This record gives sequence, structure tokens and C-alpha cells, in this order.
Amino acid sequence: MKIEVIKGGLCAVKGVRAYGIKEGNKGLALIEGGGKASGMFTTNKIKAAPVRFTKKQLEKGRISAIIANSGCANSFTGEQGMRNAEKMAELASSCLGVDKEEVAVLSTGPIGVQLDMGLIERQLGEVVKGLTSGEEGSTAAAKAIMTTDTFHKETAVSIDTGNDGQVAICGIAKGSGMIAPHMTTATMLAFIYTDASVDGEVLSGSLEAAVDNSFNMTVVDGDMSTNDMVLLVSTGKSGKISEGDFEEGLTFVCQELAKLIARDGEGATKFIEVKVSGAPSVADARAAARSIVQSPLVKSAIFGERPDLICGRIIAAVGSSVIADDVDLEGISISLKGTKAILAVDNGEFMDFSGVVRIILNGKEIFIDVDLGTGGEAEATAWGCDLTCDYVRINAGVH
Amino acid sequence: MKIEVIKGGLCAVKGVRAYGIKEGNKGLALIEGGGKASGMFTTNKIKAAPVRFTKKQLEKGRISAIIANSGCANSFTGEQGMRNAEKMAELASSCLGVDKEEVAVLSTGPIGVQLDMGLIERQLGEVVKGLTSGEEGSTAAAKAIMTTDTFHKETAVSIDTGNDGQVAICGIAKGSGMIAPHMTTATMLAFIYTDASVDGEVLSGSLEAAVDNSFNMTVVDGDMSTNDMVLLVSTGKSGKISEGDFEEGLTFVCQELAKLIARDGEGATKFIEVKVSGAPSVADARAAARSIVQSPLVKSAIFGERPDLICGRIIAAVGSSVIADDVDLEGISISLKGTKAILAVDNGEFMDFSGVVRIILNGKEIFIDVDLGTGGEAEATAWGCDLTCDYVRINAGVH
Repeated sequence: MKIEVIKGGLCAVKGVRAYGIKEGNKGLALIEGGGKASGMFTTNKIKAAPVRFTKKQLEKGRISAIIANSGCANSFTGEQGMRNAEKMAELASSCLGVDKEEVAVLSTGPIGVQLDMGLIERQLGEVVKGLTSGEEGSTAAAKAIMTTDTFHKETAVSIDTGNDGQVAICGIAKGSGMIAPHMTTATMLAFIYTDASVDGEVLSGSLEAAVDNSFNMTVVDGDMSTNDMVLLVSTGKSGKISEGDFEEGLTFVCQELAKLIARDGEGATKFIEVKVSGAPSVADARAAARSIVQSPLVKSAIFGERPDLICGRIIAAVGSSVIADDVDLEGISISLKGTKAILAVDNGEFMDFSGVVRIILNGKEIFIDVDLGTGGEAEATAWGCDLTCDYVRINAGVH
Repeated sequence: MKIEVIKGGLCAVKGVRAYGIKEGNKGLALIEGGGKASGMFTTNKIKAAPVRFTKKQLEKGRISAIIANSGCANSFTGEQGMRNAEKMAELASSCLGVDKEEVAVLSTGPIGVQLDMGLIERQLGEVVKGLTSGEEGSTAAAKAIMTTDTFHKETAVSIDTGNDGQVAICGIAKGSGMIAPHMTTATMLAFIYTDASVDGEVLSGSLEAAVDNSFNMTVVDGDMSTNDMVLLVSTGKSGKISEGDFEEGLTFVCQELAKLIARDGEGATKFIEVKVSGAPSVADARAAARSIVQSPLVKSAIFGERPDLICGRIIAAVGSSVIADDVDLEGISISLKGTKAILAVDNGEFMDFSGVVRIILNGKEIFIDVDLGTGGEAEATAWGCDLTCDYVRINAGVH
């Protein structure tokens, strides 16, 4: 199977128009494009109004448009919040002439504040006028939903269907803080469109698998939002594609978006990829990989480029992850890669390569390969970033 | 039951002598005092040599002496590490003339480095000469085991036995970073002595209950060490005491030590106490309380004194904690207390008292009372501290 990265963002998918505007910290994005749809939602017990609303909308398995705002999460906003989420769907429905029951609504921003519906109505008027199937439409939508993000996040790929045809799978996402590994990560929104013609069941099955191996393996800070949502819509305007190829392409797009979120972690200076292998089960491998990218001590040792601390902290993080009681971790090996590569812990023994480790940690991309050495063959990959003084400053609002 | 806080630290217990020295970041503490003993150990899958060694020593339920070093965790040090832990016990045993099998060994410091046994032997010679039942002995031992701690931690209480008698329960502890809620918290050592005459079973039962409601509810950063240990020894040199009174006194001592660890969290500027009530079960209340004190976003909002963010982040942290699916959290209430007190979220509704909240957050001690409003009556309390730029600087080794 051949995956080619293409330009155009969401608008590279046939049948999709998009646009968005941002005024101060309040933005509005609109995406038009109908078809079978599937979604995944935060597992936080407190779900924002748009999460509960859109989950219901998706019961029929179709979406015709997405309206999303930044600057207010519409979370913990009671009945008024639910009415406002519904009102957003109504407004989009009447602007676009689509069924009100096929409009998805997403919000991101602070919790416990009501939406300014007058502002949303005014912004929507402008956004509708800007709707375009050009690349700039996708970019404008991706920028409109940014909060503490420092860059907008788009990925688009084209896949050969094997019958001289091509289908596109394209997504935009936002996310920078409140990112933790559950369902979806956290204040993390992703909209993925495809013009491949895909069954509803394949759509939801592929989405679950792709999210599990991408957003759910991405940690910025370990906090979980009340607003996470990933939506997948198939316009069906291109050909069919095998189930396996579709899932592979979708996973690629989700992983690219997840890595962009990790790279843009609040205050991050370094990108971290952790691959755990040699685990007795995939669940063990996933737990260990996430434990490493979530550990404040591992993350701050990477920020501080500390060759003397990094491996000990990785081992403590592996040991504290949920791994069956009878697993022996004395044969663990750790390789560090980046601008150079080194086997820093070899079958349980600490090697003295602190000079090389320092050079690796000095780079902007750190790849940590951990072989648990249990004799198992399961593996998993997780993504994250370092923990910096700026993360604290951003979230404390101090300078 | 009357608990009176007294002076003297460990040495307020009849039959205990202690001393310690610290040279640079390498310290050694020795405590002499024999009796029935119980211990609790890290649940990290990778356990340091002294943890495995001391767990085995405790199988007979007696301890005659404790030797503890700082500056090297003797963790992930293979067979050499186990030999060194045993050697430490032998050295203490021959200095004090006690049974080698009744010496507990504890270590704290960086992982993956072998002990300098020559240094330990030399330091032990000096420490033995200093052993004293005076207050200064306990303080010297508490100071010797400090790592990133900024102050030493001692607590001592006297309890009326009801028969004109008094028993003492006294402890020292160390801990500042790598503190997370499992068994014991993390790179957290605590030695507790009592001269009450207590059965072995009561000793271990009371210790489990006390640790569960103290150290296990304390979070600095959510990282779990490979070296955590809490030891409880009864010299039995004073009278008997009822089981209930003993557990209450022991819990008090453990909570005081746990709070000292929270106050001394790496980089901390504020102490946080979270009480969750109105939960359907104690497990729910504990999970919610720990989730709040562990949330980087809650902790950084407190550091930044942000009245606009604190309640939303508390709610997201509660929602992400493991609480049964069918629990309705829409009726949650949050009170903030400190220099003032305010009901900030009333039965699901955000109140606008940002001025008062700002004054409370400006204080050094923040008390957060969360009533989940589920109709349940279970409650739990957790302790922690704010997340500051200095936490990152300390653990990154940057300035």
C-alpha cells in the first residue's frame, strides 16, 4: 500500500468546504461535507454540552456539517449549555441548508463559562461567506480552533486504491495542554474527512483502532479534558478501498496529527517518541510507554538534558506502570536516539556513555526505545514532550 | 483519647538511640532500638536492593536497628547491590552487637549507581560514636537522610493509655520529589517507633490503615520511586494501649509526616489539602481527591493564583478520576478555604466570587472541599502542593 502525503488539508477531500475566523481568543470554524460518520469522545465523567449533544447527533451515523468554536468549552454550563450547543447546530443548519440533526458541534476553551451566542452568530455569518474547497479554507478552520496551540495542525494523504484510483484521508486538529491518554487525549479536537467510500461499521472500527494507536498514546500533561472529540466523516465521492488499507491510512493521519499535538505541547522544547518492545502483552507495552511519556521526572530530565538521571527515571516509570506482578524487569534495555544513537542500558546494566547521551538529549527530537526483556514480543509507541518552566508559566498565567 | 504533640522526635520513644551525619549529598543514619516490627514497601515493579533485602529481614517480625543512607538509591544495581545491602546490615550488626537478621536497610538517591561501601563504613564509624537518646540524635538522623528536602521531618506524640500511663509514637521521614500515591508515596522513607507494647498483628494492621490514609494520599509529582519504605518498630518499654487508640495515634503521626512531605514538595510555594465528600464509596472519594492533588493544571492554577481557572480544572480532574459510570456529578459543590472561605461552586453552579478566591489563592495554605453531591456519604482527604517553575528547574537541573 502506498501512502502519499499531499497538500490541501481537509479540502483535499472531494466534497469538503471549510473556513474559519479567529478574533482574539474566540474563533469559529465551519466544515461542510456530508456522509457517513463516526466519532470518539472523552471518557471524562463530566462531559461538556457539545460532547453530549454531538454523541447524540451521531447515533444515526451521518454528519453534514461541523461547527466548532474556541475560547469557551461550553462545559459545566447546565441546561443553558445544552440549549446553546443545539442553537449552534440550528444556526449552521439554516446557513447551509442541511438537516439540523446532521450537524456536529465542538467547543474548546475554559470550563464553566456560557457561550456568547451573539458573537457566534455574527462570526458564523462571516465564516459562511468564506467557505471554500481551496487549501486556505482548511487552514483557516484549523487556525480558528487553536487555543494555546502555537501552530495549526493539518495532515492529508492520498492512497492508491489499487484500481487506478486514489482516495484522500485528511484531518485537522487542535491540542496543546490538558493532553492525557484516555479515549482521546484531552482538550483535543480532530476532524478527519475522507472521500473513500466506506461502510459505517468499517468507519467506526477503523477510527477506534486508529485513535487507540495515536491520540490515546499522546501525553502532554496527563490532564483529561471534558471536551475531547474526534470525528471521522466519509463523503464517499471517490472509490472504494480495502478495509485494511483504509485503517492503515487513517492510523497514519491520526498519528501525524497526534505527533503534531505532542510537538506543540504547552511550553515544549523537545519532542519525545517512546517505543516499548519485548512486553508480555500489548496492554503492558502501552502502559509502560505511556508511563514514560507521562512522568514529570523523565520529562524534566529531558528538558534539562541530564544524562545522569534519564535512564533511572525511565526505569522507575516503567516499574510503576501497570504490569503483571510476575514480570521480571531485570533484563531491561534502553536505547536513546536522536542526533546520535546509543545503547544506554544493556540487559539491565547501565553503560557509561554520558557524553553521547548528552549530545542526544541536546537535540530537539528524542527517541527512546525500551526493550523490557521479558521474552514477550508485544510493543507500543507513545508520543510526548518535555516538561519545561514555560509549561508551568502558561498554565499558571505567570511570566 | 488525648494526643499530645511532644518534642524529642524518635528519641522520645523509650529504648531508642539515633544519630546521623551528612557530607555533601551523602548521608548515613543509624537508629538503635529493638522490638516487634512491620513495614510497607513501594509497589513499583522495580524494587531497589534495600527494599527487597529489608522486606525479607522483616519476615520474622523483629527489628533491632535501622541503617539508612542518602545519595545513592542502590536501585537497579544487580547482585552487587544486594551484596552491598547485606553488607550494610552486617556493618550495623557488628557495631551494635545486634543480630544481623534484625537490621533494616534503606537507601535513597539516584538510581543505577553502586554504593560507595568505603564511605559508608567510614561514616558508620562516626555515627555509632554519636548515638544518643537525646533529641539531637533524632534530628541528626532525620537530616542525614534528606535529599532534595529543604527541611528535616520529625513528629512525636504522647498518648494517654487510660491507666495513668503514657506511650509515645514518634517518626522521622524524608521526601520531596518522586512522590505519588501508591503503597507508600515515593522516594519517601519513614521510620516510626513506639514504646507502646503492641502485638505484631496490630502493628501491621494499624500501619496499613495509617499509611493508606496518610502517605498514600500525598502527591508531589505523581512519580513512584523504587525505594519507598515505611518501618514501624515497637520497643514495648511502656504500657499497653487499646488497638483503636494506637491506630488513631499512629495515623496522626503518619498524617503529620505526610503533610510535612507535601509542604516540602520540590519547588512548592503552597500547601494544598483536598477533602472530597458526598462520594458513593471511599474508593471513589480517594480517587477523586488524589486526582485533584495530582493534576498539573490544578497545581499550576494554584501556583499562578488563578480564580478564573481553578474550579474548572478541579471539576475536570474529578471527572477524569475513576468513578463508577452511573454517577451524576452535576450537583458538585466546591468550597475554597485559607485566609478566607467561599463556596465557589454551589450545587453545580459557578458563583462569581473571583475577588475572594484570589485572596484565598494568594495564601500559603489552600484547603479545597469538594462535595460530589451524589447523595453518598463517603469521604477522603489528600495532600499536595502547587506545581512551580522551580519544580521543573530542580528536576531538570537548570537555573
